[in-house]
Parts: sequence; structure tokens; C-alpha cells
Amino acid sequence: MALIVQKFGGTSVASTEKIAAVAKRVIEKHREGNRMVVVLSAMAGETDRLIGMANSMQHIPDLREMDMLISSGEQVSIALFAMAVKAAGYDAVSLLGDQVAIRTDQMHTRARIAAIDVERINTHLEKGKIVVVAGFQGVTDAGDITTLGRGGSDTTAVALAAALKADACEIFTDVEGVFTTDPGVYKKARKIDYISYDEMLELASLGAKVLDIRAVSMAKRFKVPVHVRSTFTNTIGTWVVDEEKIMESMLVSGITYSKKEARITVKKVPDQPGVAAKIFLPISDAGILVDMIIQNTQDGGLTDMTFTVPRSDYERAMQILHKVAADIRAEDVTGDQEITKVSIVGVGMRNHSGIASTMFQIMSKEGINMMMVSTSEIKVSVVIAEKYTELAVRALHDAFALDKDNMPLEVD
Amino acid sequence: MALIVQKFGGTSVASTEKIAAVAKRVIEKHREGNRMVVVLSAMAGETDRLIGMANSMQHIPDLREMDMLISSGEQVSIALFAMAVKAAGYDAVSLLGDQVAIRTDQMHTRARIAAIDVERINTHLEKGKIVVVAGFQGVTDAGDITTLGRGGSDTTAVALAAALKADACEIFTDVEGVFTTDPGVYKKARKIDYISYDEMLELASLGAKVLDIRAVSMAKRFKVPVHVRSTFTNTIGTWVVDEEKIMESMLVSGITYSKKEARITVKKVPDQPGVAAKIFLPISDAGILVDMIIQNTQDGGLTDMTFTVPRSDYERAMQILHKVAADIRAEDVTGDQEITKVSIVGVGMRNHSGIASTMFQIMSKEGINMMMVSTSEIKVSVVIAEKYTELAVRALHDAFALDKDNMPLEVD
Repeated sequence: MALIVQKFGGTSVASTEKIAAVAKRVIEKHREGNRMVVVLSAMAGETDRLIGMANSMQHIPDLREMDMLISSGEQVSIALFAMAVKAAGYDAVSLLGDQVAIRTDQMHTRARIAAIDVERINTHLEKGKIVVVAGFQGVTDAGDITTLGRGGSDTTAVALAAALKADACEIFTDVEGVFTTDPGVYKKARKIDYISYDEMLELASLGAKVLDIRAVSMAKRFKVPVHVRSTFTNTIGTWVVDEEKIMESMLVSGITYSKKEARITVKKVPDQPGVAAKIFLPISDAGILVDMIIQNTQDGGLTDMTFTVPRSDYERAMQILHKVAADIRAEDVTGDQEITKVSIVGVGMRNHSGIASTMFQIMSKEGINMMMVSTSEIKVSVVIAEKYTELAVRALHDAFALDKDNMPLEVD
Repeated sequence: MALIVQKFGGTSVASTEKIAAVAKRVIEKHREGNRMVVVLSAMAGETDRLIGMANSMQHIPDLREMDMLISSGEQVSIALFAMAVKAAGYDAVSLLGDQVAIRTDQMHTRARIAAIDVERINTHLEKGKIVVVAGFQGVTDAGDITTLGRGGSDTTAVALAAALKADACEIFTDVEGVFTTDPGVYKKARKIDYISYDEMLELASLGAKVLDIRAVSMAKRFKVPVHVRSTFTNTIGTWVVDEEKIMESMLVSGITYSKKEARITVKKVPDQPGVAAKIFLPISDAGILVDMIIQNTQDGGLTDMTFTVPRSDYERAMQILHKVAADIRAEDVTGDQEITKVSIVGVGMRNHSGIASTMFQIMSKEGINMMMVSTSEIKVSVVIAEKYTELAVRALHDAFALDKDNMPLEVD
């Protein structure tokens, strides 16, 4: 008898019909003798509807009240889900974040889980109930409702699985698992059977939306086996597990890209101590996240400083930097929004040299200019012109033979 | 500096615009130096929308889960309201029933308030905040969310006013106050300035929807002055207060009617001990509330048993009674759904005889047959054919001169 945490996102519980269908799926697992804990998001569209009302109420909505408001979404879905289970003749109980209790810090709208009390859940499980927990929400020590930010329900599920020492945490979503690359870009993209926490972390941080990055990070920390799979089929998805559990690692597991960044260059900056801080401090003060940074030294004590920012912050960043440039006597500030960051990720890189150079060769062969390069232990990212995105992804997918199956194991 | 509890119903907070307008109104009172506690219902239509989803989920929805579901409605309105106050530059905090805490028994969907902890509210009030409390909901000792039933927000407001020892509890609604009769039936109907708790209790139990009967009952018990008034105007409404506070009582304060009842007669029942129980036990077992009961003794040890039931339960009651009639050898069961109960209410009746006979004279003069009569200390009700409703109401309104103003006092 296993203890399984299953998380269903907003599209999986978008209507009463869908909730009933998902409840049936959970009941099947329950009937097989498993103890089931279900984590739900709000019905699709509900959180956005509530945020829309908040924005029309207050220019910058109060964060505590925002959490009070949007946490009502999961309350609706868990109650309806418990009813669906009961309608099918099984016992269930819904629990809010504060009823569990899922304790968080006080950072409203982006709280972090500090501790989870599992007693109440265990008591209900022992009585044979399916326990339905509101995702995305927690409670402070002072009793205020908090939310964990977008994707927070994934984190709730993994945190519960860790606290309950569950055998698995299954994340149900509208895709069949993690793919070697975006199937919309390349039809040869293949579902990955096993991926390590570290690879998943890189993919998530690079924009793969299948699993929230904090959830992966927590799964890694507590070694929670996470199964990412489709709500709408019964096929096995992708297991995100400890590296040691994967018998043979691929050199490259996946290729991902992000079109959400923009590139900015501050030109001919006098190369003096403290000048980098003068550029980046005002940017971070404005809440803008800088990703890649490259500094090229030129002749005459002048340097070009190039970096990427989220495309949505591009205009603001440019405004700030034009002021800064005048201040530090840089020559000019230029920018480019039509860029893409293409990344290859794989734990196999740790033990194999030459992955980056293979990537550069492919780019060169296809005639794609690399504007920036950034590497980590298990990742290489390059910034290229946006128009080459699909070409680059397909060429790299072929070059690293990602369409070949790597894991013959069966699970579930 | 007064402490005032103000309650706004669903129509008063039906949109973000209306919430902003109501918030302005509360802020005005706050700026005058009053400490303000606001109790809100869910946005109009929201509770029904949620109940609709529950009904499509489970044939008879689980009551605990129903409370989990529908209590989310008030959560939305209080958060938006607090944002509206903050948007206007004042401080506010929203509190759920369990955050206050409003402790109730475990009777889900119709819980009763057992105790209210005022410490958290008082702490926020002392900091100059407008405290916004979710109406209609509470929490059990075990931490489960409960709701108080329809009209429960009125009860929340009065209970909070009692616990906080507030100077007044103002119930804002879509009418201007309590009227001598339904203005839709008789245009001479006049708004009552002062009415006693007992009169309001009778009017509420007789179907006047302006104030929930449990709220009135609690107001009476804790002597909370309740001001029923319109959200949409600034005029003074009706004060529901202790009888002693009303300088001169009217013989009759108001006339009300209910078209929601049906009359049933079980004919020629053998007049033996226990026969009444045999008739009424199966009815009450079926959850049907019997209101008026009349027993006429006839010759030969046979009796006719006549009583009223809610019209919505009429068919079920008739089915049950046909079986019972066969059982107890009664001759027949007849019924009539086209009836109205017309009632006159007034504490003045306590000290004046002849109110009932005046009522009967008026009925007779208008040629209206009275099928049943029932009296209490401050009320006389008669059942008549439905088609005479308006005629009876107008004639009684004139006879008791209810269009004349009775209270020259000024308040607020």
C-alpha cells in the first residue's frame, strides 16, 4: 500500500464535469489500496478573474488582501472535488492551507513554506478518506492566509509528499510529460522517461512550464520522486528522480528556448572599479531580473557591457540605462528584443567534454550567429536572433540524437 | 466616538463599483471619528452560482463541503472591500469567520454562533483600521468552516455588535426600512421609524424579508439597537429597539401577508387519544413545518383537523396524509393552495382589547371569509382566499390608520 500525492492543475478541474472525471481517476488509485492525497489548483480562469477584480479595485492591490481574495479559488475546487468523491460513494474531506496547516513566511503572494503539520491529514487517511488539499496557499503564524505565487500548487504537492514521506508525487498537467524539446517546434521531440532533478531545474529555469522550479528544487532537497503526466490519458509521463536512479544518463536530455528575453548593450563604458554596480544597481532596484551578463574589454580602458532582461521589462530598463549611461559617461545604450535563448541541458555534460563545442559547430554549420554564450555544469545557453529559433532547435535535436529512446524501463 | 457595525448585503456589493461606493460610505463614518466594523455578504448571485455547481456535483451535496464551498463567496467580497478602503487612502483589514474567531456549533449550513472572540478585531480597531468581517460564516472547535444559513450575515452583524458592545448595528439593504405593509400592495404604506424587537420578530416570522429572524432574536437578547436602512440613499431607516425605548406604541405597527402557505383538512377523524400524533408525526418526520392548527369537534365523536404547511411541501404532505387518513379511518383529505395568511402586528395589543374584533369586522365588511384564525400576544393572523389579499391589506391599513406618522423623534 503506497501513499501517493496527486496534483491537478486548473485545466484539469476547469468544470464540474472535469472534476468528476479526475475524482474517478483518484478513486481508482484509492481502490487499488493506495492512500491518496489530492492537491488542486483553482478552476482554470478563476485566479485571473479574481486578480482582474482586484486590479479594478486598487491600483496596486494590497498583497495581504490579494492573498485573501485569490485563495478562495482553490477553496471552491477542493469542496467540489470532495463532493464528487462522495457522490461516487467514497469518503473524502477537503482541507484549506490553514487547516492542514501549511505554515509559511509572511511574504504575501510569494510566500515560502516553512513547515507542514501532517497530523490532520494522517488522521483522515487512517479513516480511509481521500484527502483533498487546497494548493497554492498557506497560513502565517499570525493566522493570515498567504499564497505561494504562480505554480505554487506544484510546490504544495511536493512539500506535502515530502512531509508525508509519500511514495510518489504525481503532477497531472495538460501535456504528457517532459519532452526533449517543444513538440510544437519539432515533431521529432520525444517524451523523456526519466530526468534528474538538476536537469529539470535547468529546464524549468529556462522556461519549460511543465513543472514549477521551486517544486523541483524542493523535490530534489527531499528526494521526492515526481511523476509529471497527462490528466487526459493513462500513459506514463516523465519521472523526475535522483540522478543515481537513472541507469544511463544522456549527454543531452533536452533542448529548450525562451523568447521572453531582450538583450541590452551599454557601449564604451569607462572600465573603472564600481562601474558595473552603477549599471546594475538601478536595474535591480527597479525589480528587473538580469540573466546573462557579458563584459568585453576593448582598447583604451573602455568596455562593452551586454546582458539580457525579461522582454516585458525592456522599455523600463532602457529608460533607466539611458540616465545611467549619461552618468557614467558611456557612449551609448543599444538593445534588441528579437532574440531567443536556446539551451541544451543534460547531466551527462558533467563527464563529457566537447558538448559545448558540438553545439557551436552546429550553430556555425547552420550559419547562425551566437550573440552571447553562458554555461553551467549541466547546461549551455546561446543567444541567437529570434528568426533562427526553430532551425537551431531542430538541428541540435538531430545532432544529439534526442529522437532515440534512452530508457527502456517500465514504471507505475 | 461610537463603535458601529455596518452590514451590507449581496446587492450592495454586487460589483467592484458598488463595493467602492459602499466603502466610501463606511469611510465617511470612520472620518467622523467612529470605529467601524463592516460585515459583508457574498456578491449578489455568487452563493447561488456556487450552490448550482454543488448540485451538479452531488445529488445531495455533503454539508461540510457545501460550507467549505459557499463560504468562499464572502472571502472574495471582504478582500475586495479592504482593497477599496486602502485605495481611498485609509487602512483596513479583512477577517474570515475563523480568523475572528466566530465559534459555532457543528450544524453545517445552519450553524448557530456559540461565542465570538473580539480580541483580534479590537486590536485592529485600536490601530485605526476599518475591520471587514465575512458574514454568514464561522468555525467549529475542530476547525471546520460552517455557515449560518440564508440571512446569516444579519446574524453575524448583530452577534458582532453584541460581542463588541457596539453602539449600533446598521443593516443596509435594498429597501428604506420596515414598512407598515408591502408598498407594492398599498401605496399608502409608510416607513416605520421605530419598531420593537418583538414586533420585528413577528413580522420576520410572518415573512417580512427585511431582517433575518435569528438576527432580531439575538438583537433582542443582547439589546443591540438595529438600524435597517437603504444602501442607496442617506435617509434614516427603521430602528429596531427595546420596547421601552419607544415612547408611544401604536396599537398596530404593521400588516404583513404570506402567500407561501397551503391549507389542508383531514376530515371526520375519529376523535380518539393519539390521533393528532398519528397525523402530525409523519409530517414532521418528513421535515415539513406545520404552522396554524385548528381542530373542530363535530357530532358523533368525529373531528376535522385543519392546518397550514408551506406551499412548497403541499404535494408531499398530501401524499403522506392520504396514507395516514386510510390508517386512522378518516373520511377524506382536502386541500387548498390558493390561500393567504394576513397578519396584524403591534405591541399595543398587549394593553388594548378589541384589536382582533376590529380586524374581524373589517373582514366581514369587505365580505372576506376567514378560514382560520390564530393569535399571539402581539399578533393576529387570518387565513383568507388568496384573491382577497390586496383588498384585506388595504382595508386593514386604513382601519388602523397606519398611514399616519407615529414617531416624531429624530435619530442618527
